[in-house]
Amino acid sequence: MTTTLPPRDPDSRVAQHSQPGEHMTPDEFQRYGHLLVDWIADYYRNVEQYPVLSQVQPGEIRAQLPPDPPQTGEPFEAMLADVERVILPGITHWQSPNFFAFFPANTSGPSILGELLSAGLGVQGMLWATSPACTELETHVLDWVAQMLELPGHFLSTSTGGGVIQESASSAALCAVLAARERATGFASNEVGCDGTLTAYISTQAHSSIEKAVKIAGLGRERLRLVEVDEQYAMRPGALAARIAADRAAGLTPCFVAATIGTTSSTAMDPLPEIGAICREQGLWLHVDGAMAGTAALCPEFRWMQRGLELADSYCFNPHKWMFTNFDCDCFFVADRAALIQTLSILPEYLRNQATESGAVIDYRDWQVSLGRRFRALKLWFVIRHYGVEGLQMQIRRHVALAQTFAGWVEADPDFELAAPAPLSLVCFRHKGGDAVNQRIVEQLNRSGALYLTHTKLDGQYTLRMSIGQTHTEQRHVAQAWALIRAASRG
Amino acid sequence: MTTTLPPRDPDSRVAQHSQPGEHMTPDEFQRYGHLLVDWIADYYRNVEQYPVLSQVQPGEIRAQLPPDPPQTGEPFEAMLADVERVILPGITHWQSPNFFAFFPANTSGPSILGELLSAGLGVQGMLWATSPACTELETHVLDWVAQMLELPGHFLSTSTGGGVIQESASSAALCAVLAARERATGFASNEVGCDGTLTAYISTQAHSSIEKAVKIAGLGRERLRLVEVDEQYAMRPGALAARIAADRAAGLTPCFVAATIGTTSSTAMDPLPEIGAICREQGLWLHVDGAMAGTAALCPEFRWMQRGLELADSYCFNPHKWMFTNFDCDCFFVADRAALIQTLSILPEYLRNQATESGAVIDYRDWQVSLGRRFRALKLWFVIRHYGVEGLQMQIRRHVALAQTFAGWVEADPDFELAAPAPLSLVCFRHKGGDAVNQRIVEQLNRSGALYLTHTKLDGQYTLRMSIGQTHTEQRHVAQAWALIRAASRG
Repeated sequence: MTTTLPPRDPDSRVAQHSQPGEHMTPDEFQRYGHLLVDWIADYYRNVEQYPVLSQVQPGEIRAQLPPDPPQTGEPFEAMLADVERVILPGITHWQSPNFFAFFPANTSGPSILGELLSAGLGVQGMLWATSPACTELETHVLDWVAQMLELPGHFLSTSTGGGVIQESASSAALCAVLAARERATGFASNEVGCDGTLTAYISTQAHSSIEKAVKIAGLGRERLRLVEVDEQYAMRPGALAARIAADRAAGLTPCFVAATIGTTSSTAMDPLPEIGAICREQGLWLHVDGAMAGTAALCPEFRWMQRGLELADSYCFNPHKWMFTNFDCDCFFVADRAALIQTLSILPEYLRNQATESGAVIDYRDWQVSLGRRFRALKLWFVIRHYGVEGLQMQIRRHVALAQTFAGWVEADPDFELAAPAPLSLVCFRHKGGDAVNQRIVEQLNRSGALYLTHTKLDGQYTLRMSIGQTHTEQRHVAQAWALIRAASRG
Repeated sequence: MTTTLPPRDPDSRVAQHSQPGEHMTPDEFQRYGHLLVDWIADYYRNVEQYPVLSQVQPGEIRAQLPPDPPQTGEPFEAMLADVERVILPGITHWQSPNFFAFFPANTSGPSILGELLSAGLGVQGMLWATSPACTELETHVLDWVAQMLELPGHFLSTSTGGGVIQESASSAALCAVLAARERATGFASNEVGCDGTLTAYISTQAHSSIEKAVKIAGLGRERLRLVEVDEQYAMRPGALAARIAADRAAGLTPCFVAATIGTTSSTAMDPLPEIGAICREQGLWLHVDGAMAGTAALCPEFRWMQRGLELADSYCFNPHKWMFTNFDCDCFFVADRAALIQTLSILPEYLRNQATESGAVIDYRDWQVSLGRRFRALKLWFVIRHYGVEGLQMQIRRHVALAQTFAGWVEADPDFELAAPAPLSLVCFRHKGGDAVNQRIVEQLNRSGALYLTHTKLDGQYTLRMSIGQTHTEQRHVAQAWALIRAASRG
């Protein structure tokens, strides 16, 4: 293709603008696209100037929007002006290097461009035939990712399993619960419904998305056992085995365990070898959730956390958290793709096609809840190629080093203490003065706009979480955060 | 913000390129962003040159990708070259004006730019607090949409209900089934699991996503009743009432009906007033699926199809099908948001915050399966503002007029016949020569690359579907398609 750049003279815009109500022409798209790209570049140049946590009150954004939709079309410049005037004050800046809340949802230039290309091509990836490249690039890049993390071989598409991009770890967990439910009932629950006898197991520290999945799948929250954890907040395998035995004795059917490598609350690592052995022996589906911390396994020195993963039936982690790929991009791997496909497959007449019936292709609509899907592999492909494996390793090591430096400062300060082990990029800590002091620190700092920090509770105590993983966070941001935290603790 | 455009001299690229493994700088992002925007503009200028249905064989795309991920970073130009060389041949061009398959998944310049901005800002919209503008713009724009379609007042956020953007009509249907399940059991299924006694109802023509949702929710496919249709493929209300009565007599608990306004197969319209009356009388949740055809209600003359919608508990339609907004953008409205929220709500400690606890805000994570969500309202906002209500009406009327013209040609041709009513933009038709001729027409034309057409079965007969709704489809494309179809029918 040859690229013809339209004139950038502002006066020519009016003349070339399409008639109201007409489609935006390619020339107009080029001009406004450049304008928006420039705007985004400036956003990143200036992002540290904004309060990290939006300071608006409920209803404040809506109050600035017109009550009725416009009857006639408006120029793009008007929208962009409103983005700056109305929207920007209501943004909590997840891409600020001073964002330390929840978990990172970091992104990067190549990822943003991959999302743009996906939107530009506008293809549906529900079937192989509806865009073969959408399916094949996804399968291929997920095999790359499995190699990059050194995942067990059965998670590769060239073996019995394979990977798929899910919207989130929540939807991945739901698919895992469903496949477990079906495998445990000989694929009968899909046909006759649940009967209230299936049980599932997580630690008390597992993510809320697993409970949500268990409820959605019709198992019932009361059938989800919250297994006790040790002093490092990791699941106790003995307690798991005892729960399973008790349920069997009560005539119930244990079917699913979710273990976490890197809990949201505190990066606790459930012991996969022991949990996996129990699941194998008992015939339970083991899903491993590495949503937040899984990216660390790009580096060989952090792969200890994957020990035992060869015993898992499914695994997920989120490049949209800590691998510079914008939401949504959860990588979900299964060891036995046939079980997943049999669980989720539907084939109405209007979707029949030769490629599907040949059996030679993957139709990803059978690997997820929704039928439709966009071309999400592009952004992951761009990210991996932009950084290369070594570049990604370097960036992850930087974040971990920053977190370890921060943890060292906490340990060295007589007024503060670590609240849990900090093996990777999340540091759970607290001021020794008690819940009220810690709560005041969070509220005061978030209100200041200088940084954004959130909390959890560990052993019933209010605990601060310093989550380091935004793309552009450097030592100076972490050092400033620590200075502000110490200052806030003094009132 | 002030915009500084970096030099576009190609020689300066190397000098300014970040070190391998480092992040893309804002200057680089600007340069590559412009390059990609230009590439996309050219794609739309040239899209008619490509075979609409990708002509590659299974495995052909993967075979061109390196088996291993790159160890060191690559320049963006290399990715873009591979997009053109490797990816483009594997694209089925949903944005070609000669795409008449399945359903439209049309997009537009303002929508692509909205997606780009969403990726650039990179915010998480799971809670109001995590970006108030993300939540408030979505609520506001969905109220706009409800006004634009003249939906019943209780679907407005200012009443008891409100709207939310879902990934797809599949996920909307799942949320509706779950809310129905919980309402019917006093929110007990979430707690104790399903017991196999709940039943659900659709017509034989409903979309496969409803069956999938019923299976996922643990009701069981055998508890989903396929209600007979009339000669226009619309659900027979009498048959529905009889099924419900029989199930009650058998001790079962009917809980959910999905009616469709505009079935995927043939745009059949289920009679909402009669179905709604039954649901009200029997206390069943009525979900209405307008995924494909719902956009037509932008025009007052097509709002007849929404008659009876005031009896529905939930409604969805897809701007990502026929409203120039790229996937994913399903608008899902509920009449009673409290029921949906109670069904899907989860509140772990690490997500607690003042705004949520004040009760003054919407947290959209409680309106969907996933926790995370991106800022999808931006693209819908841009589309509505670019076209204006009148512009959208004009575009929809054009598509419908093209389809009606095509239907007229079919009716006037002695060798062809209409296979179902064609009230809007989908024409179901067939050659009178029987299944083999019709199948040959589809296969020959799709292989030619000149257009892409798919099929369904109606009354057991192979039926061609001419679905008109791609953004840039004009009369000349439809006329060419008809000429090619007639030529292909002659062998």
